[in-house]
Amino acid sequence: MRYHTRKIVKPGDLNPNDTLFGGRLLEWIDEEAALYAGIQLENRRVVTKYMSEINFVSSAVQGDIIEIGVDVVKFGTSSLILKCEVRNKLTRNTIIKIENITMVNLDEKGKPTPHGKTKIEYVKDRLEKLSQN
Amino acid sequence: MRYHTRKIVKPGDLNPNDTLFGGRLLEWIDEEAALYAGIQLENRRVVTKYMSEINFVSSAVQGDIIEIGVDVVKFGTSSLILKCEVRNKLTRNTIIKIENITMVNLDEKGKPTPHGKTKIEYVKDRLEKLSQN
Amino acid sequence: MRYHTRKIVKPGDLNPNDTLFGGRLLEWIDEEAALYAGIQLENRRVVTKYMSEINFVSSAVQGDIIEIGVDVVKFGTSSLILKCEVRNKLTRNTIIKIENITMVNLDEKGKPTPHGKTKIEYVKDRLEKLSQN
Amino acid sequence: MRYHTRKIVKPGDLNPNDTLFGGRLLEWIDEEAALYAGIQLENRRVVTKYMSEINFVSSAVQGDIIEIGVDVVKFGTSSLILKCEVRNKLTRNTIIKIENITMVNLDEKGKPTPHGKTKIEYVKDRLEKLSQN
Amino acid sequence: MRYHTRKIVKPGDLNPNDTLFGGRLLEWIDEEAALYAGIQLENRRVVTKYMSEINFVSSAVQGDIIEIGVDVVKFGTSSLILKCEVRNKLTRNTIIKIENITMVNLDEKGKPTPHGKTKIEYVKDRLEKLSQN
Amino acid sequence: MRYHTRKIVKPGDLNPNDTLFGGRLLEWIDEEAALYAGIQLENRRVVTKYMSEINFVSSAVQGDIIEIGVDVVKFGTSSLILKCEVRNKLTRNTIIKIENITMVNLDEKGKPTPHGKTKIEYVKDRLEKLSQN
Repeated sequence: MRYHTRKIVKPGDLNPNDTLFGGRLLEWIDEEAALYAGIQLENRRVVTKYMSEINFVSSAVQGDIIEIGVDVVKFGTSSLILKCEVRNKLTRNTIIKIENITMVNLDEKGKPTPHGKTKIEYVKDRLEKLSQN
Repeated sequence: MRYHTRKIVKPGDLNPNDTLFGGRLLEWIDEEAALYAGIQLENRRVVTKYMSEINFVSSAVQGDIIEIGVDVVKFGTSSLILKCEVRNKLTRNTIIKIENITMVNLDEKGKPTPHGKTKIEYVKDRLEKLSQN
Repeated sequence: MRYHTRKIVKPGDLNPNDTLFGGRLLEWIDEEAALYAGIQLENRRVVTKYMSEINFVSSAVQGDIIEIGVDVVKFGTSSLILKCEVRNKLTRNTIIKIENITMVNLDEKGKPTPHGKTKIEYVKDRLEKLSQN
Repeated sequence: MRYHTRKIVKPGDLNPNDTLFGGRLLEWIDEEAALYAGIQLENRRVVTKYMSEINFVSSAVQGDIIEIGVDVVKFGTSSLILKCEVRNKLTRNTIIKIENITMVNLDEKGKPTPHGKTKIEYVKDRLEKLSQN
Repeated sequence: MRYHTRKIVKPGDLNPNDTLFGGRLLEWIDEEAALYAGIQLENRRVVTKYMSEINFVSSAVQGDIIEIGVDVVKFGTSSLILKCEVRNKLTRNTIIKIENITMVNLDEKGKPTPHGKTKIEYVKDRLEKLSQN
Repeated sequence: MRYHTRKIVKPGDLNPNDTLFGGRLLEWIDEEAALYAGIQLENRRVVTKYMSEINFVSSAVQGDIIEIGVDVVKFGTSSLILKCEVRNKLTRNTIIKIENITMVNLDEKGKPTPHGKTKIEYVKDRLEKLSQN
């Protein structure tokens, strides 16, 4: 799993218990899944359809730096199944884990449509290919 | 299930696809679960520990009014298991459903602690009882 | 008066005095009035035209759970007059009260237009009626 | 009346009707009143106690620049009464007007306390006086 | 330099160090430059093209009131060069200073276009002129 | 330069011109610099002291995915000099570039203090070293 996006926990991200608000964390994960799927499927019309169970393993406090990891579980026809782990950047302690986040590829009318992708692609390779043509 | 909190979908709540951003919805649900548990357990130190799988059944668009329903599944010793459904206020179409949201009751040091509650209580009854003593 | 929407006071909602920021509270009330009017008038083009005087009776602190109550004062021709009270969910102490919030029903060009409503309707009844036809 | 603070209406400030969300406007006014009172009373513990009726005279749309004017109505013993007008910066059309916003001066325990001020002071004069002593 | 817009530093504006988050400050400055340019150029399509070096001279803490000053350095053909200083409203200590913020005037297609302005104009004068015609 | 954090441009991130609000971009960069410095210096008390000139090379629109790259220019005694580039994730077009962002390492009283670091460290190596001791 590759960890890209990082966040620092700020006062505005806390719950009344002064730990990281779980809802904020879910918001961050959903955005990361959406953009990861957008990159892979080369389509902006990608939405979250399903998330498997979520364990809030540990929490985070003000000033903690966290990183969000996403990996592909499976390329479906019009879907992309991801998994996600959020961990503390410095201790690597897991904060939250989700085994299945199903993203759906939509057409212009908002209906599921095949995306034609079957494996992870890197932007670098795509751009090289483009420049060779 | 009782539906209390309502939200109106505003431009700042949208994803780039111009439908309700899934992460925002999860944020709203988590806050609602936290405050529902806070009311029942009469404790502010309540955190989300687990969510079962989440189906994004349908979406919402700008101007839609949604309502969030929460119900108790089970009172544990130091936990409270809730379920949640979000639906469109006017059409009653389900937007999202979560069967198990486990909230944990914490003590001052942030450790799980028994809450002593076994059934749903209403604030009205609590206040009447207080005024009789 | 029925109390629906609930909020939990988070760090991001506080003023520098560490009590609930009055502006945030007014924002919450205005949104609640707008969506209540939207439900009753079955129109998304409803805007706030007037609020009568506002007493900030008591305040709230981090972790407090509040609830927002709205009731109808009067159905006008193109307006709907509401009243609103916000109170602490657990103590029922009043936080703020507004006797008259006038919402105006707009047409597609943003001009006031009759809404044809004369009494409070429940979504449940509307849906039953629909299913009978 | 002096107009200081300016805002530009951004997408995140709109209601579902695509005009400036009234709640956002009230939030801006309350913050401006709080900081104006803080400057005059030289105290950070100042809270909103009362607002007189509010007329939403006209609205604003995305990209509009507005300015917020505040003036003193009266110095009370532990209060400061302000009035406020928000207008479009370029057309000077009034957007909202509030004749009485009563701010209360608090002590460290959050209780009202005399502020000892009787007239508008300018920071410039205060600083000159300081440098002469 | 004229100081118009004022902000009060709230909990949601802090970094994990409990001082004003630098990124929030830059956000405020950019918005102020954009609206100042919008007023002068009488065009909503104005974007930031360049900022010269930025010194974070001092910081601010929760409850501090700051003011943002903007002045014109030069009117270009399709650009407007501004400078900006943010200071503590009560102590006048400088918080941040930027000597050159270049704003560009765009046409409907988003391309730079001459604005025809050569000196600072006041809205008051513009409106008087309009009423004389 | 390594690109870690990614963002998707949402409606709430836009300026009135419907392109990415420059202030939001600066906020994202400042947060990324702060967390990068926090990771390298293993200290949460790190603040932005200086940014060199900023070129807004190109813009971004709703739905664009951007990535933020940070690299070390120099380890000072109590400072860390970074450079930063933001680019479109899919096209790799540069959006903004900053050659020098100077972060300062603070002690508990908020005063600059030596950090003792001289080169980039990886969390992986630190954790391995820890586990060997």
